[in-house]
Amino acid sequence: MGLIRDETGTQTLIGYELDVGDPAGARCRLDLDDRHLNRQGMLHGGLAATLLDSAMGATGSLTVDATGRHPFTTLSLTVNYLSPGRPGPVEATGRVTGGGRATLFIEGQLRHQDGTLIATATGVFRKSRQEP
Amino acid sequence: MGLIRDETGTQTLIGYELDVGDPAGARCRLDLDDRHLNRQGMLHGGLAATLLDSAMGATGSLTVDATGRHPFTTLSLTVNYLSPGRPGPVEATGRVTGGGRATLFIEGQLRHQDGTLIATATGVFRKSRQEP
Amino acid sequence: MGLIRDETGTQTLIGYELDVGDPAGARCRLDLDDRHLNRQGMLHGGLAATLLDSAMGATGSLTVDATGRHPFTTLSLTVNYLSPGRPGPVEATGRVTGGGRATLFIEGQLRHQDGTLIATATGVFRKSRQEP
Amino acid sequence: MGLIRDETGTQTLIGYELDVGDPAGARCRLDLDDRHLNRQGMLHGGLAATLLDSAMGATGSLTVDATGRHPFTTLSLTVNYLSPGRPGPVEATGRVTGGGRATLFIEGQLRHQDGTLIATATGVFRKSRQEP
Repeated sequence: MGLIRDETGTQTLIGYELDVGDPAGARCRLDLDDRHLNRQGMLHGGLAATLLDSAMGATGSLTVDATGRHPFTTLSLTVNYLSPGRPGPVEATGRVTGGGRATLFIEGQLRHQDGTLIATATGVFRKSRQEP
Repeated sequence: MGLIRDETGTQTLIGYELDVGDPAGARCRLDLDDRHLNRQGMLHGGLAATLLDSAMGATGSLTVDATGRHPFTTLSLTVNYLSPGRPGPVEATGRVTGGGRATLFIEGQLRHQDGTLIATATGVFRKSRQEP
Repeated sequence: MGLIRDETGTQTLIGYELDVGDPAGARCRLDLDDRHLNRQGMLHGGLAATLLDSAMGATGSLTVDATGRHPFTTLSLTVNYLSPGRPGPVEATGRVTGGGRATLFIEGQLRHQDGTLIATATGVFRKSRQEP
Repeated sequence: MGLIRDETGTQTLIGYELDVGDPAGARCRLDLDDRHLNRQGMLHGGLAATLLDSAMGATGSLTVDATGRHPFTTLSLTVNYLSPGRPGPVEATGRVTGGGRATLFIEGQLRHQDGTLIATATGVFRKSRQEP
């Protein structure tokens, strides 16, 4: 039903869920708990990047594969950290802003359930020749 | 002796070790295994960002705290993915390139043990007022 | 009435106009001609960055100064180049996405008159203590 | 003898010189004067990006063309602004950090003559199919 769980080592380790049911863009959800926090008790910046990169890469996949699984390689990713990520459910979304057949520009947003922006991202992704 | 292990939820979850023994820059080490890989069997881009961000933030801490623990907040992080991260030991390093008392520009490199560059990063970090 | 022209050396050299009439975000306009093109006959990436940085910085100014002139320093700027900039009128816009009193996260878009995206940008800006 | 001047509209407008005499990396030089300054009397961030992008793109060209002229398209450019650019001679340099046949990762540094870093940059560039 458009939900991807436990399909890669990283996904199982971190525990996020990928929703690829909407061709316009994938969603990556995680219920933040103590395992995801840094020294300041906030979401670790690298895990914020993980959720954003996952949603953005799957958004790229959806442009060529309705199951959202065709691999896209991240060439470059920039994350801006707007506000602390607190424990509780968060969701990263992706949106294609441009590109061609093989290279895509994709932006992402990571939000708390109340809509507060935690981080934004932009990235350059390339379609892998490798089969999913 | 300058090694930080299991001090935050994220660190325990991912399993990396922080070496803050050299005031010139911190090192973040991880022995990559299946838990850290993406759909293509390579290091997940978000985990590469996690290792880089951890080494770079701790490098910032070392400028004000010899134990490398004073929190630095990442404002912005850009990661370039140069080559696939394969299973085995990898190390991220940080280096301050500029900045002032509160805001630092820090660059990072993530390498395999043979020196191959996996990813480079640049970021803007800010010293937290919060005590470690 | 909210238009800034020829107020700095760079502005006079490049020839762009800043519209700071809308507190929600500044606009930077330029009629691209041969002087602004690169070896491929397209807008030089650095000039795209100039228009975006100008619109984004002035958008920051508008949060503290209705005339859009209070200086904001760019700490970090990431530009993604989506499609070639062709001769003719283009407009860069800025929008604040987050931040606090002194540091702002601002995004920008550069478009042709028909709405085609040429480039997007995100950046971290800091309010200068210097008076305008 | 390895110096490029006035070959594009942008180059003539801004006045920089490209030195492509060293295959290891191009250099882009400009004698900063009032025409290149912003409202704070410092080098405009967009012109810093222009010098960096020019040096970095030409560095890409040198990997395939000893004259440094084969066009490379900038996909993404991140600039970090470490210290103000003051009037006088400055030089941007480029260095390839990774990539393959068509896509290159290139970093850049912009310095005053005394070696002070003004800005650093990283970017993703792609070889154009277009002849120079």
